[in-house]
Amino acid sequence: MRFTKGHGTANDFVLISDPDGERALSDAFVRAVCDRRTGIGADGVLRVVRTAAVPEYAHLAAGAEWFMDYRNADGGAVEMCGNGVRVFARYLAAHGWATDDAFAIATRDGVKDVTLRHDGRVTVDMGPPSFDGAAPDGATFVSMGNPHVVFFVPDVGDAPVLTDGPRIEAATPGGTNVEYAAVGDDRIAMRVWERGVGETMSCGTGACAVAVAAATRGLAERSVEVAVPGGLLDVTWDGTVLLTGPAVLVADGALREEWLHLP
Amino acid sequence: MRFTKGHGTANDFVLISDPDGERALSDAFVRAVCDRRTGIGADGVLRVVRTAAVPEYAHLAAGAEWFMDYRNADGGAVEMCGNGVRVFARYLAAHGWATDDAFAIATRDGVKDVTLRHDGRVTVDMGPPSFDGAAPDGATFVSMGNPHVVFFVPDVGDAPVLTDGPRIEAATPGGTNVEYAAVGDDRIAMRVWERGVGETMSCGTGACAVAVAAATRGLAERSVEVAVPGGLLDVTWDGTVLLTGPAVLVADGALREEWLHLP
Repeated sequence: MRFTKGHGTANDFVLISDPDGERALSDAFVRAVCDRRTGIGADGVLRVVRTAAVPEYAHLAAGAEWFMDYRNADGGAVEMCGNGVRVFARYLAAHGWATDDAFAIATRDGVKDVTLRHDGRVTVDMGPPSFDGAAPDGATFVSMGNPHVVFFVPDVGDAPVLTDGPRIEAATPGGTNVEYAAVGDDRIAMRVWERGVGETMSCGTGACAVAVAAATRGLAERSVEVAVPGGLLDVTWDGTVLLTGPAVLVADGALREEWLHLP
Repeated sequence: MRFTKGHGTANDFVLISDPDGERALSDAFVRAVCDRRTGIGADGVLRVVRTAAVPEYAHLAAGAEWFMDYRNADGGAVEMCGNGVRVFARYLAAHGWATDDAFAIATRDGVKDVTLRHDGRVTVDMGPPSFDGAAPDGATFVSMGNPHVVFFVPDVGDAPVLTDGPRIEAATPGGTNVEYAAVGDDRIAMRVWERGVGETMSCGTGACAVAVAAATRGLAERSVEVAVPGGLLDVTWDGTVLLTGPAVLVADGALREEWLHLP
């Protein structure tokens, strides 16, 4: 079974080619592949499958030839990932499965428009934000399809990500992502507590939420650079939110038969 | 650049083929490959090179055709690794570079004899133990080329690996590995604080040291099964110490040009 490993701002994925939808990935297989010591190691698996070959989403096939089947490292299906969809787009281009610079990708959260940049980065239209939710005192609530609570702080280095992050997640019905952001002269620095995961190197929707929250508070322009621990992202809010960032393909390979046959 | 990923009891390695010694691996390259999010991810790199092509060790070439150039994830050269040498042996066999079931591998710690088992495991002769060193009260000192301090405890689950491990390492000139071991009916369970690394899933020399310490104290036979967090190892002490354990090749691949050309 062939695979490609890639990452966007250090959020990493194993991509598995399955154009005709012939591979049902078991939770156990996804967990084994994502194990960082006994497998390949990744935050999740992106199965690359033609939209027409996925019965629940085949109705999206007219607008988006390819479907991003994103599975978390624990095996669970995930709706959408701003870092993953960029890597997915780069993979399609690298394999000759997308020949235009701009095209659409189907996800469990609907169809996403992507644009390949000449510098290797990828822009994805993350849709409009919404503000229909509650945040603790002093914080801003932003939904990018998933909920975010954004705090502005002087310095992210000593932000209470690991203490208040899990506390706020636990106190919020359905949970929430929690961001701490510091607005600087050139960019906004942020750290993120991801719902159900913990602190991570990068969160695409979190970067969008931080940029939107900063703009609504008049702290920054509507087009800003956001520094996550894993790298730099550009966010532009103009009706919808455009997220631009790196998408790197690291290696291509094949899983060994002896490993696939392990109990 | 082609690579293979493999592991022995969850101690994992990226193997890079360089039969004729044409690749000088920079520290920066090793660190980039071993990065678990932006590279392939591993505890270290094993460069597979003919002994005759390594000037400092070419004198070992008559007895051992292949040299294990082991580099830690930080880029530093490492003398020997009981888990790595098993994976190295499996790699040679899988690539047709070793055709016998028993052969020798050159390392910075000299020539090591290995035997491929029919169940996929590999045995390596780790040499004789020595006891010329000091241990804290109640502990046993064993050298397997590198120093080990072994404590026997009722249960490894609540052993003070993370508290006393670094304290004992710091208090020992040159540092030391620290093992906590519990002798059960069928096997010895252990956890290990590795010098310069921290708690790890497995340590081949540590498993040998625990088995030797148990035998010297009359707690176990001289042939025992040792359970490390990452799996099961067999250790037999009969003059030299024979370490037997799994060696799994996970995948083969090639690093992408775009990744290799990153700044």
